[in-house]
Amino acid sequence: MKKIIFIYILINSFFVFAQSKDKPNFIVIFCDDMGYGDIGTFGNPIIRTPNIDKMADEGQKWTQFYVADPVCTSSRAALLTGRYPIRSGMTSAKRVVLFPDSSRGLPLEEITIAEVLKDEGYSTAAIGKWHLGHLPKYLPQAQGFDSYYGIPYSNDMNHNGFFGEYLEKADDPHYISDVNRFDVPLIQNTQEIERPANQLTITKRYTERAVEFIEINKDKPFFLYLAHSLPHIPLFVSEEFKGRSKAGVFTDVIEEIDWSVGQIIETLKKNNIDRNTVVVFTSDNGPWLLFKTHGGSAGPLRSGKGTTFEGGQRVPTVFWGPGIVKPGVINEMGSTLDLLNTFASLSGGKTPSDRKMDSYDLSKVLSERAESPRKEFFYWAFAELHGYRTEQYKIHVKQREDINYSSPTIILEKPELYDLRADISEKYDVAKIFPNEVLKMLKTMESHLKDVEGSRPEQLSHVIEGSTSTDGFRDKGRGF
Amino acid sequence: MKKIIFIYILINSFFVFAQSKDKPNFIVIFCDDMGYGDIGTFGNPIIRTPNIDKMADEGQKWTQFYVADPVCTSSRAALLTGRYPIRSGMTSAKRVVLFPDSSRGLPLEEITIAEVLKDEGYSTAAIGKWHLGHLPKYLPQAQGFDSYYGIPYSNDMNHNGFFGEYLEKADDPHYISDVNRFDVPLIQNTQEIERPANQLTITKRYTERAVEFIEINKDKPFFLYLAHSLPHIPLFVSEEFKGRSKAGVFTDVIEEIDWSVGQIIETLKKNNIDRNTVVVFTSDNGPWLLFKTHGGSAGPLRSGKGTTFEGGQRVPTVFWGPGIVKPGVINEMGSTLDLLNTFASLSGGKTPSDRKMDSYDLSKVLSERAESPRKEFFYWAFAELHGYRTEQYKIHVKQREDINYSSPTIILEKPELYDLRADISEKYDVAKIFPNEVLKMLKTMESHLKDVEGSRPEQLSHVIEGSTSTDGFRDKGRGF
Repeated sequence: MKKIIFIYILINSFFVFAQSKDKPNFIVIFCDDMGYGDIGTFGNPIIRTPNIDKMADEGQKWTQFYVADPVCTSSRAALLTGRYPIRSGMTSAKRVVLFPDSSRGLPLEEITIAEVLKDEGYSTAAIGKWHLGHLPKYLPQAQGFDSYYGIPYSNDMNHNGFFGEYLEKADDPHYISDVNRFDVPLIQNTQEIERPANQLTITKRYTERAVEFIEINKDKPFFLYLAHSLPHIPLFVSEEFKGRSKAGVFTDVIEEIDWSVGQIIETLKKNNIDRNTVVVFTSDNGPWLLFKTHGGSAGPLRSGKGTTFEGGQRVPTVFWGPGIVKPGVINEMGSTLDLLNTFASLSGGKTPSDRKMDSYDLSKVLSERAESPRKEFFYWAFAELHGYRTEQYKIHVKQREDINYSSPTIILEKPELYDLRADISEKYDVAKIFPNEVLKMLKTMESHLKDVEGSRPEQLSHVIEGSTSTDGFRDKGRGF
Repeated sequence: MKKIIFIYILINSFFVFAQSKDKPNFIVIFCDDMGYGDIGTFGNPIIRTPNIDKMADEGQKWTQFYVADPVCTSSRAALLTGRYPIRSGMTSAKRVVLFPDSSRGLPLEEITIAEVLKDEGYSTAAIGKWHLGHLPKYLPQAQGFDSYYGIPYSNDMNHNGFFGEYLEKADDPHYISDVNRFDVPLIQNTQEIERPANQLTITKRYTERAVEFIEINKDKPFFLYLAHSLPHIPLFVSEEFKGRSKAGVFTDVIEEIDWSVGQIIETLKKNNIDRNTVVVFTSDNGPWLLFKTHGGSAGPLRSGKGTTFEGGQRVPTVFWGPGIVKPGVINEMGSTLDLLNTFASLSGGKTPSDRKMDSYDLSKVLSERAESPRKEFFYWAFAELHGYRTEQYKIHVKQREDINYSSPTIILEKPELYDLRADISEKYDVAKIFPNEVLKMLKTMESHLKDVEGSRPEQLSHVIEGSTSTDGFRDKGRGF
C-alpha cells in the first residue's frame, strides 16, 4: 500500500511539475505617476533608460496602451480585476482615491489576477504600493497574493502639512524633502515593520525583494506584481542615484527604476527562466503636472494625471518575453484591463464568467503580432464617463482642467471629437466636420452607461469611524 | 622608361586604392520640416518608422542635435559650410529664405562639405531639395558636387495662388493637392528636365537615384547628400504609400521616407560597404505647425519651424555605421554645423583654416562615445541672435510666435531662462532664480555678436532684375 501511495504521489508530482513548467511566469512592473514621455524609447531626450529601451527593442513597445482611470486607486483596481472601476465601486464622485482614514478597500468579492493564477498553482507576490485598502482585511493577502511587502497607499499621505511646502519647493528640480515628514508605514504581509518608511531606499528594497522572490520561485510558475511607489511625489532616491543624472531628482528616480528593471531581467536570465516569463512594464496614470519638474512629462500627449486627455490615461508600456513575445512596435490599442484575460489565456486559467468583464485577450498579439482585439476604450474618471474612443476617433463630453484636476468636472457645451491618428496631441476638434460620427459615438456611450448600471456601490468615501475625515477633492493639501 | 612609368602608376594606383578603401563613405539623409516627434524612436505613437528605429538601435540616437537656423535656406547653408548662416550671409532680416525670384545663392567663396571631401578624392552627389540658389551658377555643381538631381527650392514655391487654399484644406489629414498647381522644376545638373516636377513620385525617384549613385561608386569613397523635399507641404506620396497608414498623408509621407532609408541601408549591405559608411539621418528644422495635421509634431518640445524654441531647431537625428559608430543614446549636444569637421576628421580632410568656423569634430563621440566637444549652441533666426544654451541652461532674449512665425520678432522685456535638463518643454522660466547665470550668458552672447561682426553681407533679399519681387515676410501666401 505504501508503495502504491508513493507511486501515486510520484506520478502526481510529475504531472504537477510538467504542467508547471508549461505555464509562463508573469511580472508586472507598475510605476506611479510616470508619464508617457518619461522613457527614452518613448521620446524623452534626457532620461536614460537603457534597460527599458532594450526591453522595448527585444519585445513589444505599445504606443496606445491605456489605464482604465487617470488616478491611482481606480487604475490599480482595474488592472487587478480586468474591470472598469465603476463596476467594482473603486471610483467615486465624492472622493478621489483611498486615504489613510478610509475604512474600505477593493471588495473581497472582486476576483484579481492573483486569484486567477493562484487557481493555476502560481506563487504570487505583491511588492510596492497597494492603495486598494490599507486595513489588514483589504491588504494583498486578502486578494490572492501569498505575500506582501510595501506601502499601503500613496507615498505623500500622512504628510503632516508638508504637502503645500513641497509644492513651493518643487521649482527646484534637485529638491529632496525630509523623508520623516511623510509618515507612511512599510508593511510586511499585514504587519507594520517601519514607520515612517525610509523612502530613500525604497526602490532598492523593492528590487531586492523582487529578485529574492524570483529566485525562490524559479522552478514553479509565479506572478510578481511589483508596484513602485515612485515617481509619485515626494521624490526620493538612493545615494547611488542621487545627482547621477544632473537633471534633477525626477530623472534620478526614473533612472533608478530603470536600474531596477535591469536587475529583474538579469535575474530571469541568470536563472534560465527568461524564455518562460512575460514582463510588462507600465504606469498607473500620467504625470502629475502640478509639480512641474518633479512631475514628469506626457511627451506629445495632452495634459496629465487626473484628466481623461491622452496624457492622463495613455502610459508607456512594454511587453517583454523572448520566448513568448514576438518583437515589434504595436500601435493598436491595449489596456491594463486586458492583463487579466491575457494572463488567464497564457496560463490556461479562467477569466471570471459570473460577472461583466472589460478585459480583452491580447495573447495572440503578444505571440503572433495578430491584430489587437481591443477596438474601443471608455474614458472614466471620478465615477463619470468623460469620453470614448474607437481606432480613429475620440469623443469627449466632460473634462478636468489640464493642470489642476482637483477642480470640478467641466461638462462641455458641445462634445469634442479628435482624430487620434492624425492629431496625436488632441489639438483639433473636428466634431463639426463629422457630426454623424459624434452621434454614433454618443450612442455607444449611452449603451455603456446602461451596461454599468447596477454596479457595486462606491467604496472610496467610507471612513474609519471617529477619524477626522477629509475630502480628497476639497483638501488640496492631500495627494492622490 | 615605359616600365618605370608603368610601375610608378601601379604603385600610385595601389596607394590611391588603399587610401580610398580607408576613407569612409558619408550619406546625409536630410528631411524637410520633419519634427522631433515624427519618428517612432523619438516618441511618435502612430507613424511607423522601423528602418529609422533600427538605425537608432544599431547606431547612435542623438537627442539634443541642432540645426543652426529654424528655416530652410539658412539651415542648409549651415550644414554644408559648418558656419552659422550669419557668417555666410545666408540669413536675412528682410527675407526669410531664397525664392524663385532670388538672384543669389550660397556665395561661391564658401567651402562646403562636398568641396572638402572632393579634395580627398570623393565622388559627390546632391539629390533632392537644394534651396541655396536656383540659378545655374549656384546649383550644387558650383559647390563641390559632381552631379545634381532635384528641385532647386521649396516644393510649395510657384504655387499660383494655391497656398491659401491649401491652408484651408489642411483640416483634412487625407487631403492631397493637385500636383500641377505647384510649378516647381526638376533639375538634372543645371538643366530643367521636368516642370512641374511630379512630386507624387519624387521620394521614390530620389531614392532610385541614390541607390544608383551608391552602386556606381561602391569601390571608391563617396559623399551623398540626399535632401528629401518632403514632408514640407504640399504633401505628396506615391501610390504604394497613399492611405497606407490610415492616419493621413503626413504619416504616409514619413513612412515612405522610412522605406527610402531602408533601401539605402539595404544597398550598403548588399554591396558590402555598410561597415565603411556613416549614414546620418536628420531634418532641416522643426514641424510647420501652421498646417495642423499636415505639419507634424515636435513631440515634447516647444513650438516648431521658424522659432528658436527647441521644437524649431532640435531635430531627430541618428548616426549609423556598424563599422564606425559605437551604438548608444547620445544626450549631449551636436549640430549639423559639426558634420563638416566630423567628416573632415574621419576622411583625413581639412577643415577650412582661413575663416571662422562653428564646427566641432564629433568623430570621437561616434567611434568611442567620448564626451561631445559641443558645449554650447547659439540660436539664430532671421539674422538675429535669439538665444544661447550651455549644457544646462538656455537663455532667450528674442522670440517668434509659436504658430505664426511670419509675424515680427518679439524682443522680450526680460530675458527668459530655461533649464533644458529638468524642463524639456521650456515651460518654466527660472531667470529670476538664477540672475547671475542670466548675466553670464548675456555676456557670452555679446561676445558672439562681436565675433560675427564683419560677416558676409546678406544674400537673400537680392532679386532677379525685372522680377516682381515679393517679401517673404509680408507675403503670407508664400512658403519657406
